[in-house]
Amino acid sequence: MARINDHYQKLAAGYLFPEIARRVRAFQERHPKARIIRLGIGDVVLPLVESVRSAMHGAIDEMGTEQGFRGYGPEQGYAFLREAIAQHDFGARGVAISADEIFVSDGSKCDSGNIQEIFAADARIAVSDPVYPVYVDTNVMAGRTGRPDDNGRYEGIVYLPCTEANGFRPEPPGQAVDLVYLCFPNNPTGAVADRATLTRWVQYAQATGAILFFDAAYEAYVTEAGIPHSIFEIPGARDVAIEFRSFSKTAGFTGTRCAYVVIPKELKGTDASGAPVDIRTLWTRRHTTKFNGVSYVVQAGAAATYSERGRAEIGEQIRYYLANARIIRDGLTAAGARAFGGVNAPYVWVKTPQGVRSWDFFDQLLERTHVVVTPGAGFGACGEGYFRLSAFGKREQVEEAVDRIRERVSF
Amino acid sequence: MARINDHYQKLAAGYLFPEIARRVRAFQERHPKARIIRLGIGDVVLPLVESVRSAMHGAIDEMGTEQGFRGYGPEQGYAFLREAIAQHDFGARGVAISADEIFVSDGSKCDSGNIQEIFAADARIAVSDPVYPVYVDTNVMAGRTGRPDDNGRYEGIVYLPCTEANGFRPEPPGQAVDLVYLCFPNNPTGAVADRATLTRWVQYAQATGAILFFDAAYEAYVTEAGIPHSIFEIPGARDVAIEFRSFSKTAGFTGTRCAYVVIPKELKGTDASGAPVDIRTLWTRRHTTKFNGVSYVVQAGAAATYSERGRAEIGEQIRYYLANARIIRDGLTAAGARAFGGVNAPYVWVKTPQGVRSWDFFDQLLERTHVVVTPGAGFGACGEGYFRLSAFGKREQVEEAVDRIRERVSF
Repeated sequence: MARINDHYQKLAAGYLFPEIARRVRAFQERHPKARIIRLGIGDVVLPLVESVRSAMHGAIDEMGTEQGFRGYGPEQGYAFLREAIAQHDFGARGVAISADEIFVSDGSKCDSGNIQEIFAADARIAVSDPVYPVYVDTNVMAGRTGRPDDNGRYEGIVYLPCTEANGFRPEPPGQAVDLVYLCFPNNPTGAVADRATLTRWVQYAQATGAILFFDAAYEAYVTEAGIPHSIFEIPGARDVAIEFRSFSKTAGFTGTRCAYVVIPKELKGTDASGAPVDIRTLWTRRHTTKFNGVSYVVQAGAAATYSERGRAEIGEQIRYYLANARIIRDGLTAAGARAFGGVNAPYVWVKTPQGVRSWDFFDQLLERTHVVVTPGAGFGACGEGYFRLSAFGKREQVEEAVDRIRERVSF
Repeated sequence: MARINDHYQKLAAGYLFPEIARRVRAFQERHPKARIIRLGIGDVVLPLVESVRSAMHGAIDEMGTEQGFRGYGPEQGYAFLREAIAQHDFGARGVAISADEIFVSDGSKCDSGNIQEIFAADARIAVSDPVYPVYVDTNVMAGRTGRPDDNGRYEGIVYLPCTEANGFRPEPPGQAVDLVYLCFPNNPTGAVADRATLTRWVQYAQATGAILFFDAAYEAYVTEAGIPHSIFEIPGARDVAIEFRSFSKTAGFTGTRCAYVVIPKELKGTDASGAPVDIRTLWTRRHTTKFNGVSYVVQAGAAATYSERGRAEIGEQIRYYLANARIIRDGLTAAGARAFGGVNAPYVWVKTPQGVRSWDFFDQLLERTHVVVTPGAGFGACGEGYFRLSAFGKREQVEEAVDRIRERVSF
């Protein structure tokens, strides 16, 4: 009989967001009239901007003509999009990334989940704690871990605690690992890494031979000068890092689907004999074998975000969400809470009152205020005693949620 | 230093289609005025139909409004599309598949490449020879094989020869395997499997516990009555099979990207202890962890292919390509060639003259006729001495290619 991949059975049963959905549904059934405000899942709410829609309409019209029809495109993405990315996301910031180092995909979840495939089955990985669950779960599925302990920490993974004490910015570990997942601006804590911190990570990678997976899905939310938007702003990073970017939170593409990976030509791993192997070539083989490119219509839409009008439109949306984040952070702080993030990130990370456990606070908050947040413990052991608020909401809902929390919760 | 997945180094260096592209480029450089006709890669050429474009335009307009905007959708696809699939692709043919057994994706290449992940690393696989290279390469990458031999056959894979003698329809092997990849109508041979053949496969799977991966990407090209369009038309198949379907060749979606997988609730594998495990649940975990759903705009377009007008429009395109296939098959047969397929499939599989090797014939044909085909050997050892012609071309080009071949090649 067909044997399954037993590693799947190590996965903790309840994934975070389905469990939240289940509790909210149960609450709504008990209180059918409650006006629930959802600041849990980080999903955008503002309409797709005019420049993107216009480009997508144009692409559909092209697809309706003999001359303009496009079948299979290059798996790595069309040149028009890869070149726009290289120019605007990197060149404009003084970072030299060429179009053929960019791989367009349908989402950072896929990319950050799939990247581990091209590395050894016994590669040792390090993740921050708390962490975006996809990094961990995809390595569990691949067999790089043992079972989880009572805190949900899997045997074999090196966890890097993110705490108030270290500003939610973990330092490189004392031991050598092969692959490190970093995310800045961070989901869930909203922390950012300064040049000095990222430089220490690049130096660690250079010294140990580790490769850094740098998830910069929220880079557009960086407001403070001096904070790097890309790992490739750090000297030496081209030898040690892969970067993930997405149009999801930058341009409201969560339902439209477009993202990309950057793999510099210098990046090498080693094979069993110790010989260096080009990582970009390996990923090309993976990407072209298992993926057939992003819809042309979607790529046309993504490229429009780099037009002058597109940049203005999406900039306005990002400022809207950042203003929400400020309202949340200031409101919670005024209520007496210890709130972090929300300045260079669309997430605010808040300590629960009186050390209440995350899921207990989630339930209490839902009962008292009808506001849905994300329990910090869902992101890892070090998230216990925290909760995350997302700034991706309509302004009036964000304001009302903050008002309700201020009125009904003592921090 | 970060160790790579060494299994990638077992992969044969030249993937089929890049090698074809390289040779065609070199030829074009030597003969810049040659009017090359490409019947190699199986990519559609007719414009996206009006009903699909209209639905996509509508979806984009919705995405531009506060009320109509959609962020993250269900990873498995929107209910409107899954229900339309269940009703039209299965219910209408008397096959009971429910919407929650359908997983919408961005392509069958991804699905047929990813499905192996949920099975054991030492699962034994069987593939037909010749075969769509993705089935094999993704298992090589996952470490289920040794190195390839001189014929390109990987150690550890059970190859099922498809020959004139067996009508390019392999019978189940004498030994037990865990996973079997079947594709009907077949790429590259154009062969179809009748009920009796598929029934023997289902019985084999029932007897041995194997799971069948049934790739039905070309089912819309079946013209003859009595040929199953789905493995689930065979009694018992719900216990043993997974089916892959795609909008690529059915509705001209190669550049638009939408496909789906069907996993019945009855389908089980076994874990290390021998206990049965629900395959649909495993795939749900994989799909929701590593994928974020297909673009809403694309799903709206895919759903439109099930409207009355949509079905009429895509039916017309399929008939156009099938008429091309008939022209190719009849023309080559009249030229004295032994040609197969092309009746229930968009591919015609042809024996090279005088036993010339596939790649030699590819080069000769390009020199003499400026027509690009696909060398059969690129699909496997049993493809040696054959070539594939794709019916996905403009009518006048197909006619001219056939005329050139009839005039300039002796079979």
